[in-house]
Amino acid sequence: MRAIKDSVHDWVEVDGVAEALLDTPAVQRLRHIKQLSTIRLVYPSANHTRFEHSLGVYHLADRALAHLDVTGARADTVRAAALLHDVGHGPYGHQTEGIIQRHLGRHHDDVAHLLVDGDIGAVLRDHGLDPERVAATVRGDGKLGQLVAGELDVDRMDYLVRDAHHTGVPYGTIDYGRLLRALTFRGDDLVLAEGNVATAESLLVGRALMNATVYRHHVSRIAGTMLDRAGERLLDAAAIDAEAFARMTDAELLGALREHDATADAARRITERDLYKRAVWAERGAVPGDVVDADYETVRAFEREIADTAGVPDGEVFVDNPGHPSMPESSARVVVGDELRPLDQQSPLVQGLQESQRVQWRFGVYAPDEHVPEVAAAAERVLGLDDVGDTTEQ
Amino acid sequence: MRAIKDSVHDWVEVDGVAEALLDTPAVQRLRHIKQLSTIRLVYPSANHTRFEHSLGVYHLADRALAHLDVTGARADTVRAAALLHDVGHGPYGHQTEGIIQRHLGRHHDDVAHLLVDGDIGAVLRDHGLDPERVAATVRGDGKLGQLVAGELDVDRMDYLVRDAHHTGVPYGTIDYGRLLRALTFRGDDLVLAEGNVATAESLLVGRALMNATVYRHHVSRIAGTMLDRAGERLLDAAAIDAEAFARMTDAELLGALREHDATADAARRITERDLYKRAVWAERGAVPGDVVDADYETVRAFEREIADTAGVPDGEVFVDNPGHPSMPESSARVVVGDELRPLDQQSPLVQGLQESQRVQWRFGVYAPDEHVPEVAAAAERVLGLDDVGDTTEQ
Amino acid sequence: MRAIKDSVHDWVEVDGVAEALLDTPAVQRLRHIKQLSTIRLVYPSANHTRFEHSLGVYHLADRALAHLDVTGARADTVRAAALLHDVGHGPYGHQTEGIIQRHLGRHHDDVAHLLVDGDIGAVLRDHGLDPERVAATVRGDGKLGQLVAGELDVDRMDYLVRDAHHTGVPYGTIDYGRLLRALTFRGDDLVLAEGNVATAESLLVGRALMNATVYRHHVSRIAGTMLDRAGERLLDAAAIDAEAFARMTDAELLGALREHDATADAARRITERDLYKRAVWAERGAVPGDVVDADYETVRAFEREIADTAGVPDGEVFVDNPGHPSMPESSARVVVGDELRPLDQQSPLVQGLQESQRVQWRFGVYAPDEHVPEVAAAAERVLGLDDVGDTTEQ
Amino acid sequence: MRAIKDSVHDWVEVDGVAEALLDTPAVQRLRHIKQLSTIRLVYPSANHTRFEHSLGVYHLADRALAHLDVTGARADTVRAAALLHDVGHGPYGHQTEGIIQRHLGRHHDDVAHLLVDGDIGAVLRDHGLDPERVAATVRGDGKLGQLVAGELDVDRMDYLVRDAHHTGVPYGTIDYGRLLRALTFRGDDLVLAEGNVATAESLLVGRALMNATVYRHHVSRIAGTMLDRAGERLLDAAAIDAEAFARMTDAELLGALREHDATADAARRITERDLYKRAVWAERGAVPGDVVDADYETVRAFEREIADTAGVPDGEVFVDNPGHPSMPESSARVVVGDELRPLDQQSPLVQGLQESQRVQWRFGVYAPDEHVPEVAAAAERVLGLDDVGDTTEQ
Repeated sequence: MRAIKDSVHDWVEVDGVAEALLDTPAVQRLRHIKQLSTIRLVYPSANHTRFEHSLGVYHLADRALAHLDVTGARADTVRAAALLHDVGHGPYGHQTEGIIQRHLGRHHDDVAHLLVDGDIGAVLRDHGLDPERVAATVRGDGKLGQLVAGELDVDRMDYLVRDAHHTGVPYGTIDYGRLLRALTFRGDDLVLAEGNVATAESLLVGRALMNATVYRHHVSRIAGTMLDRAGERLLDAAAIDAEAFARMTDAELLGALREHDATADAARRITERDLYKRAVWAERGAVPGDVVDADYETVRAFEREIADTAGVPDGEVFVDNPGHPSMPESSARVVVGDELRPLDQQSPLVQGLQESQRVQWRFGVYAPDEHVPEVAAAAERVLGLDDVGDTTEQ
Repeated sequence: MRAIKDSVHDWVEVDGVAEALLDTPAVQRLRHIKQLSTIRLVYPSANHTRFEHSLGVYHLADRALAHLDVTGARADTVRAAALLHDVGHGPYGHQTEGIIQRHLGRHHDDVAHLLVDGDIGAVLRDHGLDPERVAATVRGDGKLGQLVAGELDVDRMDYLVRDAHHTGVPYGTIDYGRLLRALTFRGDDLVLAEGNVATAESLLVGRALMNATVYRHHVSRIAGTMLDRAGERLLDAAAIDAEAFARMTDAELLGALREHDATADAARRITERDLYKRAVWAERGAVPGDVVDADYETVRAFEREIADTAGVPDGEVFVDNPGHPSMPESSARVVVGDELRPLDQQSPLVQGLQESQRVQWRFGVYAPDEHVPEVAAAAERVLGLDDVGDTTEQ
Repeated sequence: MRAIKDSVHDWVEVDGVAEALLDTPAVQRLRHIKQLSTIRLVYPSANHTRFEHSLGVYHLADRALAHLDVTGARADTVRAAALLHDVGHGPYGHQTEGIIQRHLGRHHDDVAHLLVDGDIGAVLRDHGLDPERVAATVRGDGKLGQLVAGELDVDRMDYLVRDAHHTGVPYGTIDYGRLLRALTFRGDDLVLAEGNVATAESLLVGRALMNATVYRHHVSRIAGTMLDRAGERLLDAAAIDAEAFARMTDAELLGALREHDATADAARRITERDLYKRAVWAERGAVPGDVVDADYETVRAFEREIADTAGVPDGEVFVDNPGHPSMPESSARVVVGDELRPLDQQSPLVQGLQESQRVQWRFGVYAPDEHVPEVAAAAERVLGLDDVGDTTEQ
Repeated sequence: MRAIKDSVHDWVEVDGVAEALLDTPAVQRLRHIKQLSTIRLVYPSANHTRFEHSLGVYHLADRALAHLDVTGARADTVRAAALLHDVGHGPYGHQTEGIIQRHLGRHHDDVAHLLVDGDIGAVLRDHGLDPERVAATVRGDGKLGQLVAGELDVDRMDYLVRDAHHTGVPYGTIDYGRLLRALTFRGDDLVLAEGNVATAESLLVGRALMNATVYRHHVSRIAGTMLDRAGERLLDAAAIDAEAFARMTDAELLGALREHDATADAARRITERDLYKRAVWAERGAVPGDVVDADYETVRAFEREIADTAGVPDGEVFVDNPGHPSMPESSARVVVGDELRPLDQQSPLVQGLQESQRVQWRFGVYAPDEHVPEVAAAAERVLGLDDVGDTTEQ
């Protein structure tokens, strides 16, 4: 048994299959993927990694299993899945998800290819576990998969509290002890026991306030868009193949960008926090429906057209379309009397949160500081925006 | 200058008029009034007092004044008002407000009678301040009064964070540093600067979640109703006059209740946490409008009628009617573009919170454990309730 | 099972015999005994009670038992003892220990009389436990008694962390998770496993720094001496008998002092923080050996003689003799190689702490502010002090 | 004015010259130097950087200056020095100090070459500051330089608290608010005011416990030795010059090690936490005096001789000689009565800490896991060790 000191959960005791998994290169690699990628450019203390987050998710899964009285190989499968749930992330986590999706057709929770072969597969089999089943649990499949990836999963309980601790923004500090004790099964559904509407609301509120203040901060969205475009260039130039790209660490990607001519400037800008600025930051009502619906290729075509109209070099205009707002936790179910009710039916607060997300939604167009005025004008024309909106909102 | 260690704000530096006020008996008395009165029966760590809260409000007022660049006697008036804002509270704070209001016609922020004469008046005048103006500031009058008592006052910033720290419930942990820096004046109105809708929302959300989990917990409502009825008996029996009652500490009131025959049982029940239980815990829709509108005398008549119908001794049925839900912070104003907008117009989240309060609203009837069934039945009949609602919700 | 929110340990789950004990009046009474008695006069946030501390000690005992793999009735005995370990405290805890010792010959951990009869005895027997054995465990007897009262007990682990949380003084924030995991038995001795010298040192250092900053703060020593003398007067006047005295709460004692003429002034001074001041605050070297060795009666005779010499009223001079410094944790044993070594043999840091206690030792003589000069002069003469020492420290 | 959210000090307000310095590449580079380098291999949450630490030091310097009533250009010089005090660090901070010292003859606080020319020099001169004077302040020269680099500097106040927050080890949580308020000048000496011996002791105790538990953890010492040797190889191979080496970030150094044949294995071992193990971990008494006195070249010769004797490949044995223990804070001066006394004269606790450091001192020899036995035997012979000591102490 190994006891590891964690800044959030104090001591995390790691045992059995989880202890053996810790030493695999795929898990150690998570030390080199920051949990909040470029959000450290806004909140400088936010340097925590997916390694410690994975330990935290393992710890909370272990506590939830004890509470739900699940033991044996079924519990070990969940523990292994909890520890491994993020091994599929590329460099900079969510910020390269689009690239990996487009080139490899994989989402970060498709991890079967990483779990079946190699060290991890060997460890799992040594401990009597089925790698395919662990991978399915990571995807949220099966009754117990909901604990790892679902509306009430321990993943979000850990990241909200951890991200609050490391950014210093208090809103994510949910009462996970209460949530864990409220978890129960109704048939095959993981739900919250009677009397926990407010408990569930607090989870959604924490998430919504962290979205507004941290996760969707415009500086991070700008840096993320810059990373996406730079990553595409790196792959286009065949400097690296997509599988190798997907296995890089944050620093390895930044290093590769630095060494390649077409991406060196992006690398320097991210390293020195000399980012593009907002030329457009438009509310939902100002953006035509077909622009919101536009796919990646169309967005890239918009970028070229705006650059051309504005008379700035190709590749210096980025369009950041967040798509339609969603709030998956809203469908978490709570026991009310004899019924299971989805939270957004039961709670007017959750309805308010959903509407709030729509109000906070912003569509961005970014460019180097010196080209902002002409890019703003060109974007309004090309995209048919009513109003470029407020770019001063923090 | 005195530096006082505080568990929330670390070191609070107290100077000038505030330092002199600290040693007055009226301020020292606040050490003996718990901030959360009977909520310690649910959250045993919640033993903090209005003394340390008053120091915290003083500290935040001082920071706000520095940020708003207010100095001199105007600032000293606010600092004095901040430190003194709770001296008007009776024993057990909000839980005896009704008694004091009915017998003396005073709200806890009517403090002129305490500030003009005696030690406090002398200290204020010694430091060149006008006691009447300090009292007006405590009431929230005047431009700077809004800092002490208004939708965006430093009072609620302190109590949310402090109550979170001492209960262990994280929801009140707002980012007061950000709120303080966002405060600004538009003409005579204290508002939040541009770009702070989410900041304002976080304040309301913190308050709403603390309401649901802490401030309006049914155990505290039951204890509060028991204190109100016992206090009335004590005054009826002329055991004490209302002015003396209003100046008691928590322990002095409990001691007086213990020594008086008609109230000794209530004192024992509160001391040993052997409280009445809920016979009715009804949602808004289940309670006829005229019952919700009933004044105190009518409520007391209901109690007698229910006791009579149920065949239980007079004085063993308590009706707890919370009146119409309100959320004063909703009218806080935020700068949006060129306009000042009330938060509840601007924020769908705040609208959700208001609706949520209505959903969480509960009407209670309480009785000794052994009489709950008959009191429940009698109350349904007497009050015309549709449905006694759910008494299991935490 | 009841889950109780605690500001230090988050959720404490209370089960079985412990849950049943919670509702006994003797345990509920602990809600009305402050953990740090008059230290709140220095650290205003320190209002926490022995009730929540007892829950914390129960929680840590439960974790230690799990780690040491102790189950069944032996474990339940320890859990009950942990929850009950402070029920023997009089009002204001340690500050009335002397009175109770002198009048009843009992120390606060002599609790057999409270455990064998009445509610607690009934609850213990209902759960198959022997009240005498629980009482013995509270005293620290037996192998498992060391967990509750010994050099490495969970009592001090809880109070250090809790007192740090509530005063805001960080020094008590020890790593109790590490200590708990390091506990092990060597034969019948509870010791720290190999490699934990630094872990043990941290416990002693936390205690020593809290002593200097919190526990032995002169304001608390003055208030404690005033309470002792006022308590003696109350008993002398036969206003109350010693057994009743010992069962009072803090507020009940203060109320009784207020109502009795000879003690009303002491009550007012404590309530309004208008305490006696230091006339003498002497280092060890300045105090003759026979004065340090003086027993209570001799100390009281000194008081009368100093008052007489100084020409101040009898009863307005208090002599506070702390006796010889001790540091019981120093004898905690740690495994080093094949041996068990007492910590003060193994650790030069612990030797430094012991010497440090001697340096920080102070002998006090207190009097009303207006009599300080003449009392200081008289005390020097009567007691043969070399030097009244430094009264400005802290 | 920019307000930056910090996980330790909440909001840090950055203004004037400091705000302008923030955007220079040399300061932004600190985002890529971890504060605790390889200690994250033991404490996975310890990923904080010298950037946020530098902001913290700036913040505490600003508060200390306010307290000491220093304003104008003298204060700006200190603020600039506080923000810049770590720009001289090489990759992995202290772990490459030896390399930089040997090749460039520079210590990390020799920063004049970085401050006089380039962006930083321009910013300083623009704000009317003399770069040479700022560099001198970083070195600790001058009356105010003691605030930045001295026994009582704000650098250690920040790092103790910050390292505690991020590792989760509580011992560093000192009361810096109290220390800041106790700072005062006696002539040109920065000292602690009367009555602060315990305050000063707490600083040293925090440092000593963090040394034992965090800073000198053997895993970090092994990783540091591996980095030193790998760095030397990289420079020997002329793969990079020493000036370029000194300006790398952590990730750039690791990348360079990975790409160079002679150092690729070291890079992999550090990335995957597959470190060398302790063959020797000897107490002070077991190591001959001339071995402790050995300089770097002699140590490297020992390594070759031990490898040769053990029959393992050259370069797979590392000797880690920590030199003589020291504790610079011990000479901090405290006002006692009319005198200034060095803390180690006044405090037996500090004497205990000094002796404790000698007891905890360890001399290490490291090798790949599979060669540990033969390297241990060879090292004993070559170095003349009495006893290879205890390698199990955590």
